[in-house]
Amino acid sequence: MAKENSSVGLTSTKYFNIPDKIILESGVEFSPVCVAYETYGTLNENKDNAILLLHALTGDAHAAGYHDENDKKPGWWEDMVGPGKAFDTDKYFVISSNMLGGCTGTTGPCSINPESGQPYGLNFPVITIEDAVKVQKKLIDFLGVKRLIVAGGSMGGMQALEWSISNADMVDAVIIIASTSRLSAQGIAFNAVGRNAILSDPYFNNGNYYNQEKQPEKGLAIARMIGHITYLCEESMHKKFGRRFQHSGRPNFDFNIDFQVESYLEHQGRSFVDRFDANSYLYITKAVDYFDLAQKHGSLKSAFEKTKARFLVMSFTSDWLFPTSQSKEIVQALIQAGRDVSFCEIESPCGHDAFLLEFETQTKIVKSFLAKGEENV
Amino acid sequence: MAKENSSVGLTSTKYFNIPDKIILESGVEFSPVCVAYETYGTLNENKDNAILLLHALTGDAHAAGYHDENDKKPGWWEDMVGPGKAFDTDKYFVISSNMLGGCTGTTGPCSINPESGQPYGLNFPVITIEDAVKVQKKLIDFLGVKRLIVAGGSMGGMQALEWSISNADMVDAVIIIASTSRLSAQGIAFNAVGRNAILSDPYFNNGNYYNQEKQPEKGLAIARMIGHITYLCEESMHKKFGRRFQHSGRPNFDFNIDFQVESYLEHQGRSFVDRFDANSYLYITKAVDYFDLAQKHGSLKSAFEKTKARFLVMSFTSDWLFPTSQSKEIVQALIQAGRDVSFCEIESPCGHDAFLLEFETQTKIVKSFLAKGEENV
Repeated sequence: MAKENSSVGLTSTKYFNIPDKIILESGVEFSPVCVAYETYGTLNENKDNAILLLHALTGDAHAAGYHDENDKKPGWWEDMVGPGKAFDTDKYFVISSNMLGGCTGTTGPCSINPESGQPYGLNFPVITIEDAVKVQKKLIDFLGVKRLIVAGGSMGGMQALEWSISNADMVDAVIIIASTSRLSAQGIAFNAVGRNAILSDPYFNNGNYYNQEKQPEKGLAIARMIGHITYLCEESMHKKFGRRFQHSGRPNFDFNIDFQVESYLEHQGRSFVDRFDANSYLYITKAVDYFDLAQKHGSLKSAFEKTKARFLVMSFTSDWLFPTSQSKEIVQALIQAGRDVSFCEIESPCGHDAFLLEFETQTKIVKSFLAKGEENV
Repeated sequence: MAKENSSVGLTSTKYFNIPDKIILESGVEFSPVCVAYETYGTLNENKDNAILLLHALTGDAHAAGYHDENDKKPGWWEDMVGPGKAFDTDKYFVISSNMLGGCTGTTGPCSINPESGQPYGLNFPVITIEDAVKVQKKLIDFLGVKRLIVAGGSMGGMQALEWSISNADMVDAVIIIASTSRLSAQGIAFNAVGRNAILSDPYFNNGNYYNQEKQPEKGLAIARMIGHITYLCEESMHKKFGRRFQHSGRPNFDFNIDFQVESYLEHQGRSFVDRFDANSYLYITKAVDYFDLAQKHGSLKSAFEKTKARFLVMSFTSDWLFPTSQSKEIVQALIQAGRDVSFCEIESPCGHDAFLLEFETQTKIVKSFLAKGEENV
């Protein structure tokens, strides 16, 4: 039933082996790199109708549709991608790829290191958002795309910003949702504690856990629980769970789960370890922590002076992880750099998660932003 | 030098063995209970000049002064307790005791269970804020105190509220700082993840770790790091650390400490495990989670109709763990219950920690609040 409603229908992940070496921001030359990606819609003759979607921390290439008739869930941005949707596959050739360092097809710490025949583990090089974009650029060139729109929420927004700077000549429009040009100290702190939980797990074994019977699941689950607290907000947690007890309506007087919110976090932690690699969590949160456009380019204004695109920046009122103030910083610097920028703060009680949930409002805004570009074609 | 400035000078912790059984809120009858406490100043002839200070999550009986000439730090509320200070020991007999379930003198999970000759560990009964107050009441009676003022920040404020209800006849005034009548779902979530980190530590051993060579230090450190993020706020973290690198001014490109904020959290985690017991952390956070006056008494108004004291409620603008809105809930219910209440939201960039830092403003407000009571004597 759900599959019939999914407007892009059945999709599949493809793989591109990058033929050349990637020179990483750390100075390391790295290869081979394989990129997992999906596409929806058709690239036009001018090869200028492409939109690259960039996923958030734990996302993957599977942005829309179903892989299989038996899939319970569609891709992570199903509500935004398809014919007539925000990213309209009747008009656009939509691309989504798994990030470098990820664990769902693109080369990452769980990939086999050809030199050792074993998974990289912590021998995988430390990567940055710039590195991830370099890899995506290889894919975009391989697909023959000439001009591009980039769009992403959260960490995806960081990648979109990086795209607009390091590939300014090919990017026409940039959509940044619930994102930032640099994480706050508090944001780094949450990531650091999550990494600490993974590194402290007795089964972490310095990252060489792939052949073990037991995995660093508890550490990864704790990291995920911390993450989930930051993705929601006090208001949404209050609405979802309040202080309701899970079982008997009264305290257990023990250390089992008492409150519904505890049960929710346990569930989120437990289900995450089935789909995500602890090492990838380390590498990707580190890339997020390092991202700082103002530090790299002297100032945010200088960074954006290198861009040539139109920008749409959206934030959500209850997002305290990537608060509106950080979006406004981006917007102000874009204005100072003389760029064309639209900004919208969307009223939402859903916290940071809103970019994955509030699709109706986002659809209207994205459609109207993209329409302006279509007039010029 | 610091010791000379400490107005209460050298102090020492005393111990009171409660002769009777404590009937806990869970229904369990529990004994023996020993209470660690300190006093500053002198109880007057009418035995009506006592102030009981209630400590926060990881506090202890040592509220002011130094135990020893070599002590590096005074008690936790040194700036507020002493001759001429907010809690003026020239006028008042100030009492501070370690909470039931604690690990610094009062009976807790690290105490020896007389039945087994071994530390209680998880055989210690689950306790509540009401239970902690019951134990404090035994101490207050033992000291011969007839009338009492109660004051506390954070979890200490919860205990002060409980005192005002369960011992209404002897409490004249209540000072509640950066506290709440019940934790939000988000607050429970942070505590739950901290407990999860402890329970997941490979050395936790179901709470029986006291005789082990290795202790559940990593789990406890992670719990503490999470706590510290919530005690500060984005603004204070930004001011203290920003995005400054710890060592070379640039990324390490590895998983060692990169940012100053990471180093701070590491330090907080590491130093905490030297002074706190992991089991106590479980028990006391659980007591905090359970505390809910409205749920227990039908409504917050009904709860406060049982009180007979004057109230002072203070909150801090940047405290997002126990935000001003929660203090206002208390104030509104007190007004509805017809009680005399003063409320002040103090402008501070220090987050929840402000109640331990902003002593100048607090001193003025507390002094003026206490002075009103002194007029009536």
